[in-house]
Amino acid sequence: MNNPGTARTACLDCRLAALRAELARRALDGFVVPHADEYQNEYLPPHAERLAWLTGFDGSAGTAAVLGARAAIFVDGRYTLQVREQADAALYEFRHLIEQPVADWLAGALNAGARIGYDAWLHTPSQVERLLSACTRAGAELVAVDGNPVDAVWADQPPPPAAPIVPHEERFAGRPSADKRAEIAGALKDGAECAVLTQSDSIAWLLNVRGGDVARTPLPLSFAILHADGRVDWCVDPAKLTGGLAAHLGNGVDVHDLAVLGGLLDALGAGGTRTQISPETAAAWIVDRLTAAKADLVRAADPVTLPKARKNDVELAGSRAAHARDGVAMTRFLCWLDGETARRGVGEIEAAERLAALRAEGEFFRDLSFDTISGSGPHGAIVHYRVTPQTDRKLRAGELYLVDSGAQYLDGTTDITRTVAIGEPSAEMRDRFTRVLKGHIALATARFPAGTTGAQLDTLARQYLWQAGLDYDHGTGHGVGSYLGVHEGPQRISKAGTGAALEPGMIVSNEPGYYKTGEYGIRIENLVAVARAAPVAGGEKQLLEFETLTLASIDRTLIEPALLTPDERAWLDAYHARVRETLGPRLDGDTRAWLEQATAAL
Amino acid sequence: MNNPGTARTACLDCRLAALRAELARRALDGFVVPHADEYQNEYLPPHAERLAWLTGFDGSAGTAAVLGARAAIFVDGRYTLQVREQADAALYEFRHLIEQPVADWLAGALNAGARIGYDAWLHTPSQVERLLSACTRAGAELVAVDGNPVDAVWADQPPPPAAPIVPHEERFAGRPSADKRAEIAGALKDGAECAVLTQSDSIAWLLNVRGGDVARTPLPLSFAILHADGRVDWCVDPAKLTGGLAAHLGNGVDVHDLAVLGGLLDALGAGGTRTQISPETAAAWIVDRLTAAKADLVRAADPVTLPKARKNDVELAGSRAAHARDGVAMTRFLCWLDGETARRGVGEIEAAERLAALRAEGEFFRDLSFDTISGSGPHGAIVHYRVTPQTDRKLRAGELYLVDSGAQYLDGTTDITRTVAIGEPSAEMRDRFTRVLKGHIALATARFPAGTTGAQLDTLARQYLWQAGLDYDHGTGHGVGSYLGVHEGPQRISKAGTGAALEPGMIVSNEPGYYKTGEYGIRIENLVAVARAAPVAGGEKQLLEFETLTLASIDRTLIEPALLTPDERAWLDAYHARVRETLGPRLDGDTRAWLEQATAAL
Repeated sequence: MNNPGTARTACLDCRLAALRAELARRALDGFVVPHADEYQNEYLPPHAERLAWLTGFDGSAGTAAVLGARAAIFVDGRYTLQVREQADAALYEFRHLIEQPVADWLAGALNAGARIGYDAWLHTPSQVERLLSACTRAGAELVAVDGNPVDAVWADQPPPPAAPIVPHEERFAGRPSADKRAEIAGALKDGAECAVLTQSDSIAWLLNVRGGDVARTPLPLSFAILHADGRVDWCVDPAKLTGGLAAHLGNGVDVHDLAVLGGLLDALGAGGTRTQISPETAAAWIVDRLTAAKADLVRAADPVTLPKARKNDVELAGSRAAHARDGVAMTRFLCWLDGETARRGVGEIEAAERLAALRAEGEFFRDLSFDTISGSGPHGAIVHYRVTPQTDRKLRAGELYLVDSGAQYLDGTTDITRTVAIGEPSAEMRDRFTRVLKGHIALATARFPAGTTGAQLDTLARQYLWQAGLDYDHGTGHGVGSYLGVHEGPQRISKAGTGAALEPGMIVSNEPGYYKTGEYGIRIENLVAVARAAPVAGGEKQLLEFETLTLASIDRTLIEPALLTPDERAWLDAYHARVRETLGPRLDGDTRAWLEQATAAL
Repeated sequence: MNNPGTARTACLDCRLAALRAELARRALDGFVVPHADEYQNEYLPPHAERLAWLTGFDGSAGTAAVLGARAAIFVDGRYTLQVREQADAALYEFRHLIEQPVADWLAGALNAGARIGYDAWLHTPSQVERLLSACTRAGAELVAVDGNPVDAVWADQPPPPAAPIVPHEERFAGRPSADKRAEIAGALKDGAECAVLTQSDSIAWLLNVRGGDVARTPLPLSFAILHADGRVDWCVDPAKLTGGLAAHLGNGVDVHDLAVLGGLLDALGAGGTRTQISPETAAAWIVDRLTAAKADLVRAADPVTLPKARKNDVELAGSRAAHARDGVAMTRFLCWLDGETARRGVGEIEAAERLAALRAEGEFFRDLSFDTISGSGPHGAIVHYRVTPQTDRKLRAGELYLVDSGAQYLDGTTDITRTVAIGEPSAEMRDRFTRVLKGHIALATARFPAGTTGAQLDTLARQYLWQAGLDYDHGTGHGVGSYLGVHEGPQRISKAGTGAALEPGMIVSNEPGYYKTGEYGIRIENLVAVARAAPVAGGEKQLLEFETLTLASIDRTLIEPALLTPDERAWLDAYHARVRETLGPRLDGDTRAWLEQATAAL
């Protein structure tokens, strides 16, 4: 979004100086600037991009610590190069977020008696605990600020988002909000009489509403308190509410201004109401306010997370319909790409825009679900590549093109990656692609007992790369919401995992890959839904399996058939037949003919 | 070891009454009796079996809590049946150790003002924290006792073990102790100037000594302090030291009586020595003493654990030699069993004794490495079955026989499980056995990048059972020591894992199984060593693989060849050829002839 350069550096210099002056006015010796908003949300609205405004670094995770004479910026392994391009080494020391944490740097850098500020809205309680421990070690004082000092010096800070909030109709949601509220309210932990909900996607799912406060996600930012009787106090900017929403919400939901939240929390304490809160996901401000009000706290996970992750039959049917529509767009795109690249050079931006335009023709289309990753040749090896006019390049013969994209439809969220050979691929490319495909198939066809976590399945997708001394440096699958976040927990498929068992109805991606830096990238991604498998004769456990939702051809020219087992070949042919039969009738003659050959049996 | 019955119940009644009287004398309202000793060791010497003496329950994990009018015993899922057979329901409430923890029971059962005792030698600091939190919730007081009250009323308590301590020769250990000490002392964490070692197996490995204080493990119980210069203060009962040991230890090891430990810890605090300690494995007594002495503590894992787990070349060569010897004993046993069971009924005890006698003929044999699991028919389905004269039964035609056994040789520790068909197995048995074998082979042939944990490999061993709706309810592999514990960390292969990466030289078991309650049990266990794999052309990662150490035939009559892939078949045939070629020359003619047919190609 921004580019480094001397003009930029000068400006960043001013910003840091302005912040330091503001800190001095407040008698603070330092301040911590995390990449976070009040909702502890993965994606920030522009007004909350304080770290990017201050430092120039616009990655999705990081923290800056600013003292009078020193400052440091902390990023993880994904961003060690990017931070050096975007932030100014004359202003910031560069540290590793995990290996050289903020707290340790502070403990070493602070003088006794120093006063360090933090914004309690932007940290979780355990993050504050670590800062506090660092300050205590150094004999310094940690102070919660009243009003963020970055906001005070950010003259053209955008306003908070105010996208309209609309009903999410029951034909898409599958269940009335009142049902969801009653069920979840009846299952609070340890006798809790209410739950404070701080995750906006939980609230959107619970109330069957959608908005647009966050890019590429139909999310209205808000807080809520769910009471044991199913009633909800909903704190949200009332200007966002659209006509008809009140009727949609019904009697059980009382809407309040965001400013009322503190008073509602105080009342929970004063009333002796046993209150469930997730300290892992809530801002420290909220937990502190409850604690100060002497609330009777039950610390437990957000009670909406799991019910939301287990899609109901209507949500699953919607996802299947959305994926068929998405598959039509993908097939039209792949057919177009095949024809165009045979005749001329197609650019990465042009390809991404073409695909977006084809998707936008689909019923219920609302937005992309994330910025398209459209990478040719060496760009395909950059896992989170985002093309800009400066980096745009043509798809060239002999190279691979990787496109990772998705859409938000009213009836479902999609996310698909396909890797396409432009011209003739090399033998090595075919070998690597086939190994990635074998891993993809191993996961797609896995059968596993109820209670199995995604971490237990991750190796299935890596094993054939391992045999060749290869691997990929990202997770194998992330959870996906239903017309909500394209990243959603608690389910995921990764080496470490979250310990959450895979349960029927959960949607997760299946996306092994392989990346050769400077040359090419390969990823094959379908979304899959966890389903109960038919019982096996003599079996003792309830088995689960995956239903593949995504429908689009997988480039046959990249497959080395000799590396596939008969079962793997059968899976691919059957998948391709399903793609052909589902999408064929919805395509024009030329595209259908192209799909026929793209999905022919191996 | 003990049997339930009315005589026993009466006696247990007396013991509980005596303990309660002792608590009253000490003005205590309750006391906690864990299954633990001062060394937080997996296996207890007889004098530390306080839980078994008091309650009758002799499982390997559990805790009792005794109050004036109530008492409860807490065991995990493995022991819910056994505790009901051994302990008296009239005396103890039965609780689940994990799901209904001691602390929660205490919090509910205690009156305000109650004084609850605990023995700080028998709990880790975090266990004490949980007890303290429970007492605080109930308004009760938690008191560290001076002298265990069970000991005060246990009239015929055995003395602490006093097995002689002998040198572990360098031809087996592979490295002088001084080398090990210098290396580990040079790599303490966070500037620590010494490490307090509380794990007896770490100390035995570090000092190249062995003893016999714990059944089936050549372990001398002791404590030690390793200093930054490689010098060691070793606290151990001096009566155990044998002639020549002082010379073996050399100048760098100062031997002290156990009673000196407290003073040494005090001196670390007084001297301001930065002291590394593992709070996960040390008794609270030690951490409390260090804290009281105001020691500068670095809380980190035992620094010996990882170097000990990575076997050096001499230890690996010793293990291979020990496994060849063990394979000779196993082959003679399997041949004998085949002949005898064809003619007559062989008992479980008779079989176990025969196998032990054959093993004892091997060079360097010192002991079994654990009590043999010798289970026929339904007994095979009891994962930790231990035959007694009361349960002994004959191996019958049409049944399976499962034998899990191992030995302590000076040059290595072994652990092997074989499942044998007596007469003709059923089709279901063959199907299940073959699925277990496929999982065993998948693990044995796995290739994986450096950094991979055992948790990432566990599913490889389960996948073929899962496909049939089956699974097994135990881990797939545990670490094994070098003439030390048959269970050793940090490496293991299990669903949860410890997060420890598998590293070259680590020895771990490969033991998938299947158990049909009331009918039969199947387990195929070999020990394997982690090794560097030869580089693959085009590979990018250092690959690791397993070298199978165990040598003994796998029952071919239990294999359904149609279920094996050509690669699996090739693995089995090659393994059997290796068994035949290695062991054949060491066997008498009849046994060799038997092995020829037992290891013929499928």
